[in-house]
Amino acid sequence: MIRAFDPGAPDGTNASLQSAISADGTPKEDETYRVPPRCGVAVRLAEGQKLAIINTHGTQVCDFWAYNAEDLDEHLSMEHVHTALGTIFPKAGCGLVTNRRRVILDFEDDTSPGVHDTVIAACDHHRYRQLGCTDYHDNCTDNLRMALIAIGQRAPAIPAPFNLWMNIPVAKDGSIRWLPTVSKPGDRLTFCARLQCIAVLSACPQDLMPINGDAGQPTELHFEVTSH
Amino acid sequence: MIRAFDPGAPDGTNASLQSAISADGTPKEDETYRVPPRCGVAVRLAEGQKLAIINTHGTQVCDFWAYNAEDLDEHLSMEHVHTALGTIFPKAGCGLVTNRRRVILDFEDDTSPGVHDTVIAACDHHRYRQLGCTDYHDNCTDNLRMALIAIGQRAPAIPAPFNLWMNIPVAKDGSIRWLPTVSKPGDRLTFCARLQCIAVLSACPQDLMPINGDAGQPTELHFEVTSH
Repeated sequence: MIRAFDPGAPDGTNASLQSAISADGTPKEDETYRVPPRCGVAVRLAEGQKLAIINTHGTQVCDFWAYNAEDLDEHLSMEHVHTALGTIFPKAGCGLVTNRRRVILDFEDDTSPGVHDTVIAACDHHRYRQLGCTDYHDNCTDNLRMALIAIGQRAPAIPAPFNLWMNIPVAKDGSIRWLPTVSKPGDRLTFCARLQCIAVLSACPQDLMPINGDAGQPTELHFEVTSH
Repeated sequence: MIRAFDPGAPDGTNASLQSAISADGTPKEDETYRVPPRCGVAVRLAEGQKLAIINTHGTQVCDFWAYNAEDLDEHLSMEHVHTALGTIFPKAGCGLVTNRRRVILDFEDDTSPGVHDTVIAACDHHRYRQLGCTDYHDNCTDNLRMALIAIGQRAPAIPAPFNLWMNIPVAKDGSIRWLPTVSKPGDRLTFCARLQCIAVLSACPQDLMPINGDAGQPTELHFEVTSH
């Protein structure tokens, strides 16, 4: 098998390489962690632990992934979620499945209006080149790769992300628009782990398309892990 | 990195393992090849070669993938297609991109009404278990794996498929329905390779959901490769 291109290797680097919250990503419960603007952070969840992701300023998109901690080839998969739920817009109260069709996270609660995207790829080096960047631009795909490297892991593949708070309406004819978030400061999404997993959050650094609020200004996110 | 689950290994087998049209999948030009019902076949395309996929009986869904022949980690990617085209319903006249955002195939012509799906995962062993099957059920994911094995390759990952002729309307609220094809016997889709690639066609064996025509009867497909 020919494998010249390593899906786990970033095309450039940023502070996500130093983002580990502990050596292997295990969190302290009830501590509030920060995802710095334009960066990614990985967090390990035991079965039954809850992850709350906080849209601190209300305008920030969070690209989100979850891998089975015991086998990174099994991961949260948007195309399998579509089949399992019969919708491209998952709402709180559903189970989110992997590429082996097992529930990896229950999507338990959402204080925002529930606008999230499941059809758009994570931004990457190639996307920003096409948008006119000549220098390296921070991007969610590399943030995922680096957040995993920071805890001693490597992405075997880059699944389609669950783009939390990303406002991508899909018209009946299939056409897509890129719009600002409709969330408010402090909105929280809560997920409960049904498998031991490694979740990765990227504070999307997109500043060329108007998705991160009207000002298009990437900012921080926060998260907490609890068992209650 | 932990990799217990091999994405390239089928969960069961069928005649797709004997489906090779040549040792490495290279076709003879202008020959008509058959994809047997419920099976998958791989075909290697040189840059500039055209692949015509024929819905022989009009009612058959074709799950479709394309990998860069020189690096299977680069492949046609539905989530990147969505971003590139601004739609979840690609129509003839567009370029279909990979996970590195390069056009791998031009979608040149379509004699059918143009109803194809890009949001639903390929059926697999787990899907048929959930639909009540206790014995092995042929499935598109294994057909992809076996079609590649039949030409001496192995799938490093299972991308979301381009589900040709699959009729999955998506409502404004995101909800999805599974409906029969709207194509007619002999409808053809033509793709032109922009990168050397390995395309894989699976004649979807789904007979529990009503996608393969009103009768729900999986059947054959045909294809041809030309350079004109």
